[in-house]
Amino acid sequence: MKKPLIFITNDDGIFSKGIRTLVETVKPYGRVVVIAPDKPQSGMGHAITINNVLRMAKSDIFDDVETYTCTGTPVDCVKLGIYELMKRKPDLLLSGINHGANTSTSVLYSGTMSAAVEGAMEGIPSIGFSLADYDSEADFTASKKAVQMTLDKILQNPMPHGVCLNVNVPKIASSEFKGLKVCRAAHAYWEDRFDKREDQYGNPYYWLTGEFSNEDKGEDTDLFALGQGFASVVPVQFDLTAYHAMAELNSWGF
Amino acid sequence: MKKPLIFITNDDGIFSKGIRTLVETVKPYGRVVVIAPDKPQSGMGHAITINNVLRMAKSDIFDDVETYTCTGTPVDCVKLGIYELMKRKPDLLLSGINHGANTSTSVLYSGTMSAAVEGAMEGIPSIGFSLADYDSEADFTASKKAVQMTLDKILQNPMPHGVCLNVNVPKIASSEFKGLKVCRAAHAYWEDRFDKREDQYGNPYYWLTGEFSNEDKGEDTDLFALGQGFASVVPVQFDLTAYHAMAELNSWGF
Repeated sequence: MKKPLIFITNDDGIFSKGIRTLVETVKPYGRVVVIAPDKPQSGMGHAITINNVLRMAKSDIFDDVETYTCTGTPVDCVKLGIYELMKRKPDLLLSGINHGANTSTSVLYSGTMSAAVEGAMEGIPSIGFSLADYDSEADFTASKKAVQMTLDKILQNPMPHGVCLNVNVPKIASSEFKGLKVCRAAHAYWEDRFDKREDQYGNPYYWLTGEFSNEDKGEDTDLFALGQGFASVVPVQFDLTAYHAMAELNSWGF
Repeated sequence: MKKPLIFITNDDGIFSKGIRTLVETVKPYGRVVVIAPDKPQSGMGHAITINNVLRMAKSDIFDDVETYTCTGTPVDCVKLGIYELMKRKPDLLLSGINHGANTSTSVLYSGTMSAAVEGAMEGIPSIGFSLADYDSEADFTASKKAVQMTLDKILQNPMPHGVCLNVNVPKIASSEFKGLKVCRAAHAYWEDRFDKREDQYGNPYYWLTGEFSNEDKGEDTDLFALGQGFASVVPVQFDLTAYHAMAELNSWGF
C-alpha cells in the first residue's frame, strides 16, 4: 500500500513542542509535509489573509520532513499547502498538538480546529489535536498515544461526510490515560472580562481575559470525558445551517 | 414599551458605507450603540485578540449615536461592547451591512457573521447583514428595506435558541427586490488559487484569490434565493457538533 501524504499544521507556530510531538509521532505513518505559522496564531479562528500578502519559507527544523513556515494564519497554511505547495490534496490533514484545550465552544476561536475544518471543507480527512495544558513544556506522552490510536482508526475507516474530528487530551499521566471516547461538545461558555490598564501616557488599554464556565452536566460531553481520563473525539461540521430552526422562522411569515 | 438597546458592529470598519446605512436605518427602532473596527477586518472569521492589547476610542462619526472604534476584530468589538462598555447584554445585535455576500460556506471566514455568531453565543438576538456587492459605493437601497423587514419580524418573535440570522441581499435595484426568504446555506466552495509575485528583491509572495463555485442546485438555498431577487435568511448555529456522525464514529470501536 502506498504511504499516505500527511499534511501537518498548527496554530502555536512552528517552534512549539506540540507540533514537534505530532510530527515525530506521525512520521512512521506516511510522507509528512509541514506548513505552520512562523509565529503564534492562537485565537485566530477561521481568519484568512485577504488584505495583505503571504510569504512562505523552507525550514530545516524537523529532520527528514519537508517543512515550511508561513506568515499567515492556520487556515492560510492549509490553503497555501494544498493550492500552491503540494498542488494536490493530501490523504490526511493533522493540526496541533495544541497547547491548551479546544473543547466545547472554544472550537470557533481555535486556529488549530479551524485548520481541520478547512481541511474538511476540501474533503480531506482532517483531525485537530489539543492537550488541556497551556504550558509550553507540557507533557505530551498521553497525547502521543491519543494520536496513534486516532490514526489507527482513521486509516481504516472513511471519515463521515462533511466532518472533521476534534480530539482533546486530558492533562494526565500517560499511565492513567484511559483511551478515546466519542462525545458531543459541551454547552459551555467563556465568561469574558477585560483587564483595563493604563499605558505610560495615561491612556487605557484592555486585555481580554475571563473564565470558562460549564453548567452542562451531560455525561456524553467532551468536558465530562476529559474529567474521567479519556481523550474526547467530537465530530465537527462546517455547515452552520440550523436546519431545526427553519420551520420556526418560516412561521414568522417573511 | 421601552426602546430596545441595539448594538451595531461590522467588519469593513467604521468608515464604510454599509455600517453608516445600517445605523441610519436602525436609529428609529431604539437606542443604538456602535463599536466597530477602526480598520477593515474582512476575512477575520471568529478571530479574537489574545496575544496583544485592545484599544477603544470614542467617535463622533454618527450624529446622535454613541459610537466607539476598536483596534481589534469584529468579535473583539462584541466582547468589549458587552463586557466593558455597556456592562449589559443589548436587546439586539446587528452586524454589517457587509460589502460583499456572506452566503454558503463564506460564513466561516466572515467577520460580519462571526460577530453575529458571538452575539448568539451570548444569548442575544443577533443578525448579520450582507449585500452581494463589494463596491465601497454600493447601492444599499434594497438592503435598507431588507433590514427594516427583518427588524419588524425580530422585534415581534423570539429568536430560535442557539441561532443567529444570516441575511444576504442581492445586488438589485430596490424596485426589483422581492423580499425575504428563509433558506439553507448552499453547499458551495471557494476554489482557491494563489497569485505568486516577486518583490523588488526577487523574493516570492502570494495573494490569496480564487473563485466561488456552486454545484448545489437546490431551490431552498441562499444562492438560489439571491438569484431570484430575494434576500436570503439563513439560521446559523454555533454548536458545531455533527450529531449525525456520532453513531458512525462509535462503530469504529475506539
